[in-house]
Amino acid sequence: MKPRLNLNADLGESFGAWRMGDDAAMLNLVQSANIACGFHAGDPLVMRATVAAAREAGVSLGAHPSYPDLQGFGRRALKCSNEEVEAFILYQLGALDAFARAAGTRLTHVKPHGALSNQACRDPDLAQAIARAARAYDAKLILLAPALSALAAAGARENLVTALEIYADRAYEDDGQLTPRAQPGAVLHEAEQCLAHVEAMLAAGGLRTRSGQTLPTPIHSICVHGDGPQAVATAAVLKSRLAEIASLAPLPSLFA
Amino acid sequence: MKPRLNLNADLGESFGAWRMGDDAAMLNLVQSANIACGFHAGDPLVMRATVAAAREAGVSLGAHPSYPDLQGFGRRALKCSNEEVEAFILYQLGALDAFARAAGTRLTHVKPHGALSNQACRDPDLAQAIARAARAYDAKLILLAPALSALAAAGARENLVTALEIYADRAYEDDGQLTPRAQPGAVLHEAEQCLAHVEAMLAAGGLRTRSGQTLPTPIHSICVHGDGPQAVATAAVLKSRLAEIASLAPLPSLFA
Amino acid sequence: MKPRLNLNADLGESFGAWRMGDDAAMLNLVQSANIACGFHAGDPLVMRATVAAAREAGVSLGAHPSYPDLQGFGRRALKCSNEEVEAFILYQLGALDAFARAAGTRLTHVKPHGALSNQACRDPDLAQAIARAARAYDAKLILLAPALSALAAAGARENLVTALEIYADRAYEDDGQLTPRAQPGAVLHEAEQCLAHVEAMLAAGGLRTRSGQTLPTPIHSICVHGDGPQAVATAAVLKSRLAEIASLAPLPSLFA
Amino acid sequence: MKPRLNLNADLGESFGAWRMGDDAAMLNLVQSANIACGFHAGDPLVMRATVAAAREAGVSLGAHPSYPDLQGFGRRALKCSNEEVEAFILYQLGALDAFARAAGTRLTHVKPHGALSNQACRDPDLAQAIARAARAYDAKLILLAPALSALAAAGARENLVTALEIYADRAYEDDGQLTPRAQPGAVLHEAEQCLAHVEAMLAAGGLRTRSGQTLPTPIHSICVHGDGPQAVATAAVLKSRLAEIASLAPLPSLFA
Repeated sequence: MKPRLNLNADLGESFGAWRMGDDAAMLNLVQSANIACGFHAGDPLVMRATVAAAREAGVSLGAHPSYPDLQGFGRRALKCSNEEVEAFILYQLGALDAFARAAGTRLTHVKPHGALSNQACRDPDLAQAIARAARAYDAKLILLAPALSALAAAGARENLVTALEIYADRAYEDDGQLTPRAQPGAVLHEAEQCLAHVEAMLAAGGLRTRSGQTLPTPIHSICVHGDGPQAVATAAVLKSRLAEIASLAPLPSLFA
Repeated sequence: MKPRLNLNADLGESFGAWRMGDDAAMLNLVQSANIACGFHAGDPLVMRATVAAAREAGVSLGAHPSYPDLQGFGRRALKCSNEEVEAFILYQLGALDAFARAAGTRLTHVKPHGALSNQACRDPDLAQAIARAARAYDAKLILLAPALSALAAAGARENLVTALEIYADRAYEDDGQLTPRAQPGAVLHEAEQCLAHVEAMLAAGGLRTRSGQTLPTPIHSICVHGDGPQAVATAAVLKSRLAEIASLAPLPSLFA
Repeated sequence: MKPRLNLNADLGESFGAWRMGDDAAMLNLVQSANIACGFHAGDPLVMRATVAAAREAGVSLGAHPSYPDLQGFGRRALKCSNEEVEAFILYQLGALDAFARAAGTRLTHVKPHGALSNQACRDPDLAQAIARAARAYDAKLILLAPALSALAAAGARENLVTALEIYADRAYEDDGQLTPRAQPGAVLHEAEQCLAHVEAMLAAGGLRTRSGQTLPTPIHSICVHGDGPQAVATAAVLKSRLAEIASLAPLPSLFA
Repeated sequence: MKPRLNLNADLGESFGAWRMGDDAAMLNLVQSANIACGFHAGDPLVMRATVAAAREAGVSLGAHPSYPDLQGFGRRALKCSNEEVEAFILYQLGALDAFARAAGTRLTHVKPHGALSNQACRDPDLAQAIARAARAYDAKLILLAPALSALAAAGARENLVTALEIYADRAYEDDGQLTPRAQPGAVLHEAEQCLAHVEAMLAAGGLRTRSGQTLPTPIHSICVHGDGPQAVATAAVLKSRLAEIASLAPLPSLFA
């Protein structure tokens, strides 16, 4: 029997009159969606439509909470207390879940966005605040976190089911962090490169770093991106190839 | 046995560094709180603190959703589709309820704020959108609506438990609407005036209008205001006097 | 000698990570730009870049102020006092002009956006508030307004140089207002249709209405749109054809 | 003849329905106002009213630009590029100046607010971005900056007239920075303490640090605060006493 594996993507990142990404295409390729909650992208109409479309596609629903930063798309770090971050997460979880509830379903996971995620991968206290908010909202929520990150560790400490993800298009450093985008080779642009990167990590049972090291870790999910036609094509290649070696499934079914 | 009655007030209307109202005082006087959800006032930290304080005081929790309008405090009408209003309400219900859930409890009512409420009291389609959102979120939510308003009618049509409120400090016209603030006598300023107004309506079993008419209606709740020291004093007089003739209780217990 | 004529377009309507329109293409086709000021679109970086690009292209700079409404792209009417609108206009004029001043130039016109413009075309008091703000900021600003609108009338009353525009892609009613978008035939989609519409109005010396009437008016400028590849193509056809019969020039040179 | 000296305060920090500070009282005590520009506080109506009141009181007008952060009152650091900060400053300078121009006058100084100011006092590149924006907008603007800060140095480097201020109610460290608020003794609460602190610094011709050192610097202005009745009383004591030893004047007249 093939092992279960999951593809996830960030969706619902349009806002008002502005469109972003090809959500319809991505919903055919991934099994779990991280949906913007209005702080970095998404507005109530976009959120409602994205929840409906994901549900229709059989894609499991996750929240993609952020710092409050529409202008910066949540990519600018905001210095605030962990107590405030906890409140930000609760607010966004509830706001998105309302659309799920109205549609007769529920959020099943949470994955922080942008600068908030980047910081939580290195800052154990911030990570703990995020995990604490998730548990306080719904102890059955799955925390979707980069493998080997402080965020993943916090999920475990808070007794959350923690799904570990790798990035198909990003190189890794020997400390398990993503290679900063400014460095050459940080981002993989070709579908075949991404596929080889993912397959190498799945085969090795861990992150493969730029220096050639393997950092052992379970891998539950692969994050793919949908902004740009090439991104969608890459995700399609990944889905098609990974379906041969694994059973692609929504996050909850990996932990059922 | 004394009949049950409820006092409600709008709370949690601070935002960031700005304070508004004396919530601590009001929580000793009312049995139900309408809590701002971040669209006209309230931020995640204020919302969390208000939920905690209300719960501590035994005051039942309601959402006070608004048009998105911090600058105008939700008092400016915004022309948008009823579908958009429905999504606004869902978003805010979920966002506030997240803090209730994290505190081990739940929202039990919803009452629209400001321009949104004023319009919904006259526009049956808008009112229906609000009631539909409340029902979609949680069919057990109580809709708190001005007696004899289109909003109250929509609540009944959507099979929501609908609590009917009167305003202690506002005069009524013969069509059941509030006298516009611009008109002389629209707002009652003295505690004794407010008390007499409320007692007359409770005794008559209906709204008492400026022209001397009685418009029969059940009365479940009395809305009091907390901005300004005089307002708190008025609420205190009302509570003390009404406690003699009625059993003051949180909204859910009126319909238990 | 050919008469002078102007083409104008709304530009700088990206926001943060979201792109809108093909500004680079449009800057080759129009002689005057209406630049978003941060209330319905545009952020400080977008505004600065748009001012620089327009200046580089020899396109004259105008402000495109709006109600504060990013989520609704300024298309939702907001009920506020004329005094507040006046302050909104001043704020946005100054904010955009700062980028012009920093680049060694100045705004030369103003044209309201979206719902604010639609309302000001029918409401003389609102129109006057806008014209008053423009004059208070800089009495030499040109007000760019739809021909025969209440806004154009207010510009004249406030002694502003008022440039009268027609829409290449919109049908007109006999009262001089645009045919509402919901009606069939309200929007012209083909380049040739738009060209014929514009040429008919220029030849007739007035608005040509759906019923076949001519409403006489001077015509200084033609508004073209740049969202969508077809829109750019239409603008290109218009520019190329109109250049044969008129000297296309920035707004200020029409009134020099 | 008495030397010239200036008192400055942050004003116009109300927003929408929320009030902050006693601007009317402060306008009788200071000679220069730092007026919020809508990013951390202030809205167009508040800005217009504050400009009018300051002008009426003969108080010189300055911009008090901030990171875009209403929820955090501009007190939360936001990680963005210096290019973006430069655009933020230009936007806010222009927006506020529009109200000055409409009232027939002009901004004469700029002083950054909150987290932006704190960072610019230590980060020379950020400080330079702020000074560059000020110069680009109007090379005659005075930069009001804490004495001995990186911001003051950047003002000098950009050839801006730079007014050096001290805080009446804050202790200093030996590196010239403010003692962090979390430390005991960081904030002086009594009017007499503040007065003694200011007089000691004026007499010594430099900052007096907690350890007893003197860090020599010219002192042009003293920053006083207006939030809270005690703050107003402190400012009144300062004004009354300093008027005996100096000629209190708006910033521009110190450099005329």
